[in-house]
Amino acid sequence: VPTLMEQEIGQQPDIVRRLAASPEQITAAVDVARRARVKFVLYASRGSSDNAAVYGKYLSTIMAGLPTGLAVPSAVTVYRATLDLRDCLVIGISQSGETPDVVQFMQAASAAGALTIAVTNEANSSLASACRLVIATQAGVEQSVAATKTYTSQLAALALFWSEWSGLSRLVTSLREDVPQAMAEVMTVRPEVQRLATWLRFSERLLLVARGYTYSTALEAALKLKETSHMNAAPYSAADLMHGPVAAVESACPALLFEVGGPALATMRSVARDLVARGAELVHIGEQSAPAEHRDIAPASLPRRLILPPGVPEELSPLVAVIPAQLLALELALVKGLDPDRPLGLSKITRTL
Amino acid sequence: VPTLMEQEIGQQPDIVRRLAASPEQITAAVDVARRARVKFVLYASRGSSDNAAVYGKYLSTIMAGLPTGLAVPSAVTVYRATLDLRDCLVIGISQSGETPDVVQFMQAASAAGALTIAVTNEANSSLASACRLVIATQAGVEQSVAATKTYTSQLAALALFWSEWSGLSRLVTSLREDVPQAMAEVMTVRPEVQRLATWLRFSERLLLVARGYTYSTALEAALKLKETSHMNAAPYSAADLMHGPVAAVESACPALLFEVGGPALATMRSVARDLVARGAELVHIGEQSAPAEHRDIAPASLPRRLILPPGVPEELSPLVAVIPAQLLALELALVKGLDPDRPLGLSKITRTL
Repeated sequence: VPTLMEQEIGQQPDIVRRLAASPEQITAAVDVARRARVKFVLYASRGSSDNAAVYGKYLSTIMAGLPTGLAVPSAVTVYRATLDLRDCLVIGISQSGETPDVVQFMQAASAAGALTIAVTNEANSSLASACRLVIATQAGVEQSVAATKTYTSQLAALALFWSEWSGLSRLVTSLREDVPQAMAEVMTVRPEVQRLATWLRFSERLLLVARGYTYSTALEAALKLKETSHMNAAPYSAADLMHGPVAAVESACPALLFEVGGPALATMRSVARDLVARGAELVHIGEQSAPAEHRDIAPASLPRRLILPPGVPEELSPLVAVIPAQLLALELALVKGLDPDRPLGLSKITRTL
Repeated sequence: VPTLMEQEIGQQPDIVRRLAASPEQITAAVDVARRARVKFVLYASRGSSDNAAVYGKYLSTIMAGLPTGLAVPSAVTVYRATLDLRDCLVIGISQSGETPDVVQFMQAASAAGALTIAVTNEANSSLASACRLVIATQAGVEQSVAATKTYTSQLAALALFWSEWSGLSRLVTSLREDVPQAMAEVMTVRPEVQRLATWLRFSERLLLVARGYTYSTALEAALKLKETSHMNAAPYSAADLMHGPVAAVESACPALLFEVGGPALATMRSVARDLVARGAELVHIGEQSAPAEHRDIAPASLPRRLILPPGVPEELSPLVAVIPAQLLALELALVKGLDPDRPLGLSKITRTL
């Protein structure tokens, strides 16, 4: 029997296609937000939803030009701060809609004058009740503790929202067609991923590096690997890595580099050269068309590159690029004899305050 | 001869005392920002300065009630986004004032209608030129590659700014008196820190956990340990840790917990119990008055607690709590035979774009 995690990874293309095909709830939310003339965006979230929020932060900053932040839930739940959030759009993201600190932050945000939107898989949740508007991610019940399909459905909801806001109809079209198709196609990297899982079996660590939109993917990949396969995965933006942490990279450190097309690629190439010089062993996740110069730096017996299907705009690449990482977390758990569906000591809803 | 890093760590109390004694540049900046009626705050920074920005984010959110974010410099430097930053206060933080992506972001922020402030140790830098206002951190030339005294001077500048903004004169007084005194007193933990460095000599990893204001301290401690002593230090807020990454904590994982007084302490206690149940070995950095229940969970031959001097308000505790961590990075480098002043392959100004 396939694990629940495996089944849910496989459901992702259809969920995104369906969400993109009925964008009415999202266009309605964009209409309200436009009329409210919001000038600043905050996201409130935890865990995988927080990684979706990082993706959302890039979308609202780059595509909409709006100053954007990730909220500090403890400002409300621990420090009882009084906030002034007029002119703010606050987007709360939670699969279950029951993460207590996110719910409390959204209640406070509504009271502080913000326009609030819940992005959740549970349209009747406490989070939905705390917000003026609800975007339901419609991914179906997620049974595996590690979020996969609810994560990509959050990405799709955020991408649809900000594409609509920014009048980028080519992205809306892409989310209906190219993206789900590429998400289905990329599942074929599984045999290569299985070989990488064997390679990583006894590694004490794994570095994950990305730049731009896929920084959120590196964060989510690291979280999946920690939760599911107990790997000490350390995610970095290429720029942050060079501001110090690179000093801790020593010989025989395995590294996964996200190298999607676009203007961020040049930085990734320069980071790759630096990592190789320090003795790191690199595997690239990127498109076939990426440059050949790194081909001979991965261990010779391994796939040096996991190829992503072509034709996905860089802004939407996180929906596709995360899938090889989800599969790696799954396969590494299996290689280690762990149950990917029930990570030790985690539960589906984490009740932090 | 003492290392430069050691000398610079020792200079910190006087630098903070001096900065707090002449707050004119800061009250002037607060005046301008108040008159500009700013409604949102963004910080732009990299490396240690980015950890100062996280502290700043807690200050402006909790004390001033303003929605706050950390900027995405690549939105400007890589993606050429057009931003609308009217009503925004954007604070650029850089020791050298020459980090190219931060400088470019601040130029774009000024053009996009933001009120811009440079917090820098170089009042004649490119960053200072790019901003309307300058707060000089006046820490003197920093010669060690790893930032120590410029980091705490940035914290002091931000704490003075937001205390002044929020009318919290008790904190301004504390920055002049109690804080520099506690910073000087805490240097006496050095023998205990030396023993901890021996304990950590062969550890492949170190967990750092905090909540609230000292989350920024955990981030900065991890960066110092990576840069200076090549330790794979993983920093977490207590809440984020429980949302997944805790699954990767296995037996014999050393952990440093920041447990300063205040409402965040309850969460820290519950996290400590969870970590102990998973076999982690904990050392606490906190005040003498913190509860005794954790006393018997650290390795018996070691100091189980690094005591912070009493009398420092929680909001200002990051200025004091970071010092044991700086000393640990220094001592661990020495135990490993590394030169703490010149980490391999790092330079004082990192030129990322």
